Amino acid sequence: MVSLTLGQIAEIADARISDPPPVPDLLIDHASSLGTAGPGSISFYSHARHRAELQQTQASVVLLREPDRADCPVPALSCKDPYLGMARVLQALYPIPEVTHAVHPGALVDDSAQLEAPVRVDFGCVVGANARVGAGSVLGPHCVIGEGVTLGEGCVLHARVTLNEGVRVGDRVEFWPGVVVGSDGFGYAQQDQQWVKLVHRGGVRIGDDCEIGSNSTIDRGMLDDTVIGCGVKIDNQVQVAHNVRIGDHSAIAGNAGIAGSAKIGRYCQIGGAAGVQGHVELADGVIITGMSKANQTLTRAGAYSSGTSIQENADWLRNVARFKQLDRIVRALKQGEKT
Amino acid sequence: MVSLTLGQIAEIADARISDPPPVPDLLIDHASSLGTAGPGSISFYSHARHRAELQQTQASVVLLREPDRADCPVPALSCKDPYLGMARVLQALYPIPEVTHAVHPGALVDDSAQLEAPVRVDFGCVVGANARVGAGSVLGPHCVIGEGVTLGEGCVLHARVTLNEGVRVGDRVEFWPGVVVGSDGFGYAQQDQQWVKLVHRGGVRIGDDCEIGSNSTIDRGMLDDTVIGCGVKIDNQVQVAHNVRIGDHSAIAGNAGIAGSAKIGRYCQIGGAAGVQGHVELADGVIITGMSKANQTLTRAGAYSSGTSIQENADWLRNVARFKQLDRIVRALKQGEKT
Amino acid sequence: MVSLTLGQIAEIADARISDPPPVPDLLIDHASSLGTAGPGSISFYSHARHRAELQQTQASVVLLREPDRADCPVPALSCKDPYLGMARVLQALYPIPEVTHAVHPGALVDDSAQLEAPVRVDFGCVVGANARVGAGSVLGPHCVIGEGVTLGEGCVLHARVTLNEGVRVGDRVEFWPGVVVGSDGFGYAQQDQQWVKLVHRGGVRIGDDCEIGSNSTIDRGMLDDTVIGCGVKIDNQVQVAHNVRIGDHSAIAGNAGIAGSAKIGRYCQIGGAAGVQGHVELADGVIITGMSKANQTLTRAGAYSSGTSIQENADWLRNVARFKQLDRIVRALKQGEKT
Repeated sequence: MVSLTLGQIAEIADARISDPPPVPDLLIDHASSLGTAGPGSISFYSHARHRAELQQTQASVVLLREPDRADCPVPALSCKDPYLGMARVLQALYPIPEVTHAVHPGALVDDSAQLEAPVRVDFGCVVGANARVGAGSVLGPHCVIGEGVTLGEGCVLHARVTLNEGVRVGDRVEFWPGVVVGSDGFGYAQQDQQWVKLVHRGGVRIGDDCEIGSNSTIDRGMLDDTVIGCGVKIDNQVQVAHNVRIGDHSAIAGNAGIAGSAKIGRYCQIGGAAGVQGHVELADGVIITGMSKANQTLTRAGAYSSGTSIQENADWLRNVARFKQLDRIVRALKQGEKT
Repeated sequence: MVSLTLGQIAEIADARISDPPPVPDLLIDHASSLGTAGPGSISFYSHARHRAELQQTQASVVLLREPDRADCPVPALSCKDPYLGMARVLQALYPIPEVTHAVHPGALVDDSAQLEAPVRVDFGCVVGANARVGAGSVLGPHCVIGEGVTLGEGCVLHARVTLNEGVRVGDRVEFWPGVVVGSDGFGYAQQDQQWVKLVHRGGVRIGDDCEIGSNSTIDRGMLDDTVIGCGVKIDNQVQVAHNVRIGDHSAIAGNAGIAGSAKIGRYCQIGGAAGVQGHVELADGVIITGMSKANQTLTRAGAYSSGTSIQENADWLRNVARFKQLDRIVRALKQGEKT
Repeated sequence: MVSLTLGQIAEIADARISDPPPVPDLLIDHASSLGTAGPGSISFYSHARHRAELQQTQASVVLLREPDRADCPVPALSCKDPYLGMARVLQALYPIPEVTHAVHPGALVDDSAQLEAPVRVDFGCVVGANARVGAGSVLGPHCVIGEGVTLGEGCVLHARVTLNEGVRVGDRVEFWPGVVVGSDGFGYAQQDQQWVKLVHRGGVRIGDDCEIGSNSTIDRGMLDDTVIGCGVKIDNQVQVAHNVRIGDHSAIAGNAGIAGSAKIGRYCQIGGAAGVQGHVELADGVIITGMSKANQTLTRAGAYSSGTSIQENADWLRNVARFKQLDRIVRALKQGEKT
């Protein structure tokens, strides 16, 4: 267990110790929400919706913005972005454990696979021929690593991650359970109204410092690779199709789908259950809001949306009926205007 | 195999034996649809779309509403809700098998894990340190149960369910294959346009009598828990994000997504592929229809929708073009009116 | 490694060798995209977006349409549909490997299961009682095949595919990792505002020559079977609910959902993240575009859509506000016209 002094935390969080001066030798050893915090606990305040909890918190210290200090009944650390500060503090309080070299006897590792010690390979893993796993990486139970797959240093694969042949992964990439990378893309030609499969021979390249959420899927490219840049964060149940390219530091929220050959720039944000149509290109800094459909190329940064908003079903039914005739209605009204 | 008399079935289904009086010693030992039923089979009729099949059924007995009896050529049992009656009868005909204590030698169970006999732990399971599995529970092949996870009595985990550290489950909860509970939520701060991970330390609590469908994912909370109430039914491929709270007896259909910190009341119904936006709150009894986006808090019970309805693509294209200028069109028309 | 002469490729791709006459003994042993191709490589050109790459390609030969030949600096093979031709060439260059009979000692195969040699059963597989696996089939690591499941000849199950009891699969069906077939459908009756489970006793039937993408799920029927026809292609993360029927040679793109008892005709195409509502029927040849909601039965072939298109968020917000009052606005305008 890690314990930190306020001084250490202030440095980690880029924060200033505000008065009232806290107990000088106070040690912080865990983090909690404002409402559940007790002695030894650090919490944070970054949104007005939690003001009542701030006012009654029993945390030992709270990270907050200077103007909110008046509402805080306990010692505070002021910083510009308490959410960011908290992220840094959590990383310090709960560091990633050091990896001790251990290959479970119940794992099936091909003789030609290269494991750069220390790596941990858990029960039930399958590591194929000529696969390479970098130092400090962990393969949780039942992971399946295909022939020739390469994993960089410090990667974490939680339980039953599957990386098929032809997948190359950078350093410090985290995969949550059920992720599948490198299946064939959904590509078929047609002949006599039947589907003729395109065998997929491209790979998947994933940059450094990415995170891929539970049960997400990333298909291999057809001839070229599917490419995920560095620092890309992908939530649960996201589908990334063949030959997609995602720029560095973009984030894709849960249930979103990126169709084949779409190209997403850097610093983009794709909202939950949003969709990017095949071959569409999104410029750097494009934000697609949740459940929107990016059905055309967007060349400028900014937020974009489609769809409509929630309303009572009875009202919605009437509006939807009008929508189905919208063009006709508008033309009739314009015609009426003229006459 | 279970066999039931009509009298037993009438009691189970809260139904009345209608004349024509059935064979007194008729035994029912299986259930079928109206169209495929034969001797020994019970079927049910609850929707007019199946009237033709009712009129020709060869079932030994049919559960139906009294007014439909005239259309039934075979013995009938009348009840108020034949669908509910059939649910009860199916549970009686096909009871959950008793569990015999058996830990497969090809499972990896930590010495400190507590298995309350009888439990069944199948081939390939991994049960972590200090995990607890209640009596009558079943872990199918390749389930991975993290450190300290607790499962109540009578739980069923089908093949390869993953419950990460910090997950606590009530009694009689059923998990279908590929479910992942307790991965980190999708939470990042930003610094210099890069994502800084929020380590997640909250858990997941799941109440009694829940069912979680294949490949669904439920993330742990950041500091507090993600909470699923009692009697909650979650379909396949549903994504439940960090710190979500779902009230008792709510149901969520396939492909739906509940974003972070959303709070869903009791007795809610979320339709297939619907989305609930982050931090939104839904009152008890709210129904979100399929593919709708609940992008604001809804304080009253009732049905809500967003989106539009299907129509021919050529017509739709014209209407969508108008939608993109809807505000401008309406303002122009209003202006024209004035002048 | 397979090597093919231009004559062989021309025959496979139903193409004509155009002049300039290629090197007579040229051998092609791999396929590449236009931009990365080098000696010994075949590529193809089928869309104007790749014209610049065509003009500079270093492929040994390019499959294209006759009119595009002028832009090709290297030998060309002309055909009517270069994409289809390439599909055939890829299948010839990268044939499915022959299966040698091998049951891994780390697999758990019930004594009563019938494996028609040659089949490959990999490490960690579980094959239940009375299951049948046809000749030439492959079960990748950690597949779980329930009691009585039948698989035809030449099926490929990649890693950790789960087929529950009651699933029957035809010949040459390919399942990608994480697929789950045969879980209970999402069917509940209601009593006192609580959900009463419908035990599902139907099965799942899958025809010949289907492909099911990573992490897709197909539920069993309640009393009758869920039925997938022949030649049906299902992408990643698709949800197919209980009692759905999908006609031959239909294709369903990623993240789509087909709700309970929907009936999809033959030669249909369901776009990415589209939804088909429960009990809806789609005629043969219906196309539902991406993210559209098929909320009514469609009796004629053709393309159908719902939703709106992407636009800047600020504009969208204004239009959405108008949509929420669309019926009221239209009625007011019509009223204004009259007076």
